[in-house]
Amino acid sequence: MTPLFARVAIIGIGLIGSSLARAIRTQGLAGTIACADANPDHAARAQALGVVDEAHTDPAAAARGADLVVLCMPIGAYAEVTQAIAPVLAPGAIVSDVGSVKQAAIAAIRPHLPEGVHLVPGHPIAGTEKSGPDAGFADLFPGRWFILTPLEDSDDTATRKVADLWRRCGMTVERMSPDHHDRVLAVTSHLPHLIAYTIVGTATNLEEQMRQEVVKYSASGFRDFTRIAASDPTMWRDVFLNNREAVLDSLQRFTEDLTALQRAIRWGEGDYLYQLFERTRDIRRGVVEARQA
Amino acid sequence: MTPLFARVAIIGIGLIGSSLARAIRTQGLAGTIACADANPDHAARAQALGVVDEAHTDPAAAARGADLVVLCMPIGAYAEVTQAIAPVLAPGAIVSDVGSVKQAAIAAIRPHLPEGVHLVPGHPIAGTEKSGPDAGFADLFPGRWFILTPLEDSDDTATRKVADLWRRCGMTVERMSPDHHDRVLAVTSHLPHLIAYTIVGTATNLEEQMRQEVVKYSASGFRDFTRIAASDPTMWRDVFLNNREAVLDSLQRFTEDLTALQRAIRWGEGDYLYQLFERTRDIRRGVVEARQA
Repeated sequence: MTPLFARVAIIGIGLIGSSLARAIRTQGLAGTIACADANPDHAARAQALGVVDEAHTDPAAAARGADLVVLCMPIGAYAEVTQAIAPVLAPGAIVSDVGSVKQAAIAAIRPHLPEGVHLVPGHPIAGTEKSGPDAGFADLFPGRWFILTPLEDSDDTATRKVADLWRRCGMTVERMSPDHHDRVLAVTSHLPHLIAYTIVGTATNLEEQMRQEVVKYSASGFRDFTRIAASDPTMWRDVFLNNREAVLDSLQRFTEDLTALQRAIRWGEGDYLYQLFERTRDIRRGVVEARQA
Repeated sequence: MTPLFARVAIIGIGLIGSSLARAIRTQGLAGTIACADANPDHAARAQALGVVDEAHTDPAAAARGADLVVLCMPIGAYAEVTQAIAPVLAPGAIVSDVGSVKQAAIAAIRPHLPEGVHLVPGHPIAGTEKSGPDAGFADLFPGRWFILTPLEDSDDTATRKVADLWRRCGMTVERMSPDHHDRVLAVTSHLPHLIAYTIVGTATNLEEQMRQEVVKYSASGFRDFTRIAASDPTMWRDVFLNNREAVLDSLQRFTEDLTALQRAIRWGEGDYLYQLFERTRDIRRGVVEARQA
């Protein structure tokens, strides 16, 4: 079978990038897999692991001759990298990405692309709290969703090829507008991370003895938040800065609900608490039924 | 080997109670295991599962003749149950519990105990989001901490026996004052649950389509909160109502930190975000090193 792409360039060979490289290799989806990473250690490590055919620190070296370039680094670097690779992109080449924010991603990439190069942004809903090329694994994707956010003028063939790529990595592909994506992800992903970072941060501000005990007895609930709050700092800084309005809006709703709950505890309103906790249990059932548990 | 206790009565045969029954059975720690549960279905189910020798709905029927009674139901029922079992408790019997709040537990139990009956409160730091007699398993305890919060006048032999029981269930036993326990658990357990309940509640308030999408794409972070927010509603209502001051204090610290983070996002202060996210990553390392991950 002919591979889907002759040469795929993965820019940023961290958790997602190296997982994608592994899945492409396993599924035989590309003739050549090239990668670039601004961190020379990561590039060298990807080469040593054998998950790519070529590893560079210069993104243009990886993107030269590629029919697909996938941006897998933090959003804050999108504009600079796109400017760097633009001169080597041939007409008909596809540029895609995996970023957790889509409107800002498009705004950072689009102005720098040469005529005839297709932009097809996307977002695989998969990940762990780990980072770096060693953290990746091909089985990260199967059974999870991939959200494709094509532009109104995105090329149909290019869109279909990107969808095919992720489908053959095991994901189920859905389409969404970039704006809607950013509002859904603000609630389902960005707000939870923000809250987890905050609560773990609150614990770091405790006096030393108390902090040690919080870690020691973390199995009682805190532990789960520390996992989420161990996610890549640069990536998440860029997510919050680049989806500011939607994040602040969902945070505002959360704060109102938290204040109501605080008041119910202060005034001993047991029925209010019980009813809320019953409702949240139902949502868990939904998650389990949707096989996302 | 002689069992540690002739007759253990477990009042409340849910996740913790039925796990304890299974561990006691597996380790041969009691001659007879009796249980009582206000829910007749749970009592019948415990009997059918064979995790107890006797199952009752009347706590006094289970406690009669017991040398150890362990309260494993929500704290709100402690006073009533203690009053119900007090007439059948023989001098020398030990009453213990597994509640997540210790000062309120002691205040609810102590006034109703007959002279010569020993109170040894405790708290196994172990659990899952599941409830009911089917949810229990003997392996819930090994490798986890048990916090013993004896009173100043607690009987040494009784305290040692309760510590032995949990140690032989596989737990590591630590001592703490009830007051200190409640402050540590407010941060490590009660606050995380409160936050998880709130964020999942915020999602339930969304318009229907958005709510479905939040569930669908929950693998991006939200999922972990739904697990915690599926915990038993009655138990958690009682925890918040009975550790009010410590919970409100930790919530206040959290809210301050959240407001600072919100401000940093609004003003685009990337360095602030990055530094916080680096710090929280260190805490995760601590949790992993403490083997509580």
